[in-house]
Amino acid sequence: MSEDRRITVVAGGVGAAKFLRGLVQVHPNHLVTALVNVADDFRLHGLAISPDLDTVTYTLGGLVNPETGWGRANESWRVRDELERLGGETWFNLGDLDLAVHLYRTQRISNGATLTEITKEICERLGIEAQLLPASNQEIRSQLKLEGGGWVDFQDYFVAQQHSVPVENLRFRGIEEALPGPSVIASLEEADAIVIAPSNPFVSVKPVLEITGVGEIIKRRREKVVAISPIIGGAALKGPASRMLEELGFESSVVGVASLYREFASALVIDHADAKLAAQVEATGLRSVVTDTIMSDIDRAAALAKAVLGNT
Amino acid sequence: MSEDRRITVVAGGVGAAKFLRGLVQVHPNHLVTALVNVADDFRLHGLAISPDLDTVTYTLGGLVNPETGWGRANESWRVRDELERLGGETWFNLGDLDLAVHLYRTQRISNGATLTEITKEICERLGIEAQLLPASNQEIRSQLKLEGGGWVDFQDYFVAQQHSVPVENLRFRGIEEALPGPSVIASLEEADAIVIAPSNPFVSVKPVLEITGVGEIIKRRREKVVAISPIIGGAALKGPASRMLEELGFESSVVGVASLYREFASALVIDHADAKLAAQVEATGLRSVVTDTIMSDIDRAAALAKAVLGNT
Repeated sequence: MSEDRRITVVAGGVGAAKFLRGLVQVHPNHLVTALVNVADDFRLHGLAISPDLDTVTYTLGGLVNPETGWGRANESWRVRDELERLGGETWFNLGDLDLAVHLYRTQRISNGATLTEITKEICERLGIEAQLLPASNQEIRSQLKLEGGGWVDFQDYFVAQQHSVPVENLRFRGIEEALPGPSVIASLEEADAIVIAPSNPFVSVKPVLEITGVGEIIKRRREKVVAISPIIGGAALKGPASRMLEELGFESSVVGVASLYREFASALVIDHADAKLAAQVEATGLRSVVTDTIMSDIDRAAALAKAVLGNT
Repeated sequence: MSEDRRITVVAGGVGAAKFLRGLVQVHPNHLVTALVNVADDFRLHGLAISPDLDTVTYTLGGLVNPETGWGRANESWRVRDELERLGGETWFNLGDLDLAVHLYRTQRISNGATLTEITKEICERLGIEAQLLPASNQEIRSQLKLEGGGWVDFQDYFVAQQHSVPVENLRFRGIEEALPGPSVIASLEEADAIVIAPSNPFVSVKPVLEITGVGEIIKRRREKVVAISPIIGGAALKGPASRMLEELGFESSVVGVASLYREFASALVIDHADAKLAAQVEATGLRSVVTDTIMSDIDRAAALAKAVLGNT
């Protein structure tokens, strides 16, 4: 393994952020690029909110709330509490420090800056040397069809309804028209290894893979691509990934993940807890890599990153 | 003076808010209506900000910063400080509590509510019984032509440049197309007395009077209209009113104010400090009312309101 390899990571929120934090411990940061999902982005109170970009930024910038893995450490809630008093919408729980980032982003958008440029500015301010690239600068919106209901936006499902209602279908509004953000295609073409982070395959990874050109390159470079399973022992550490696998007709296990990624990746990293399923994973056509995948602290995240790099 | 008279006040920011706070001490609140200027409104960080409405709302709701006469008491600056760290625009100094109101307003606008409806909602939450009516629900924007420069928006002149540059000209973008807000015309038609608050005649009062129909009714009902001079002893207590009088070709005194309002009002309330100019005021065709007009506390504001009501 040479230390000058360029690594590109397809990233969602918390799982991806933890992996990236590990990766930047063991690899030269300027050689790390994250292509970050933007399909969870939304507007609230007129503000442009990019949850996955923020989670990755806060984590790499050392600002993340260590308890939750998202949001800010030392957060305060003065604005939210006052908004509540006024009868405003507080379901998203915007913290004061978090708000500053949304104000910054929204102002820069209204000045004509792209999300790519804004993300770069924030990373520079926070001293982040890894390159974070929004998957697209166009609007893509994950929407879910809930059982017994209609289509809802992702944040409505995920935060307001706390992903408690079964999902029947999934779509990404705007994805046909969306172009990959600047440098997204180049970072995939030039990468010495591509990693699909342990993010939700449906609402974090898929809306990156389905952007015009992105999935095609990853398929073509499949031999360089390793995915990390977000499912451990049949469950997701966080969020609805395991339930969604089942609800959308896949096995809720690393085998289900393997069947989703078999065209895109040549290897799947799974946890020791799933070692017994390694043969089934391999039967889907993916090499299986068994290691510790629970990133409960930065050292474990670094160890996982090292294991992943050792298998690409 | 009967206690069931309906009073409509043409209002700008701090001066108007202080007068209204006095008025609601001495008059049944449900009979008080304020038509509030919206030409200072603007968008910042994607948020819809209505400085005059907020100043009046905060003052009548008992939330205003008593030191400044605008902004919130017990304000904190967590968001602004973080925004500054990110390199964002902080010239407007948005406080945390203040921000909550802008978030509320912006969200309701994106839900399709009008500024009139939103203002009513906020007043209900804050227990304000007087009726606050935005002068218009359409966008009107004060712009100033500065000496040696081009046209700038009001907040750029007033806050960012701290009104330090001479003004050559004034315009209200959008005012030809703007309609009076709901109930604005009715509140002027049905008022038993109309008061022009001690606000800046150019950037607070004029962009209300110039909305289609508004100035015409006020002219027609001139005998019911009393104006309060914002100029005392040749100076404004706050803001650039006296400089603007001079820069725009008027005498910087109550006589200049009288000449601006002579078509709209039948009386001008001036301070004892200007008693010697009463004859000159009357020469413009306005009755002069000499009293204490400095509202340094709520009792003095109430006394001024009483004096105004006694002269309508």
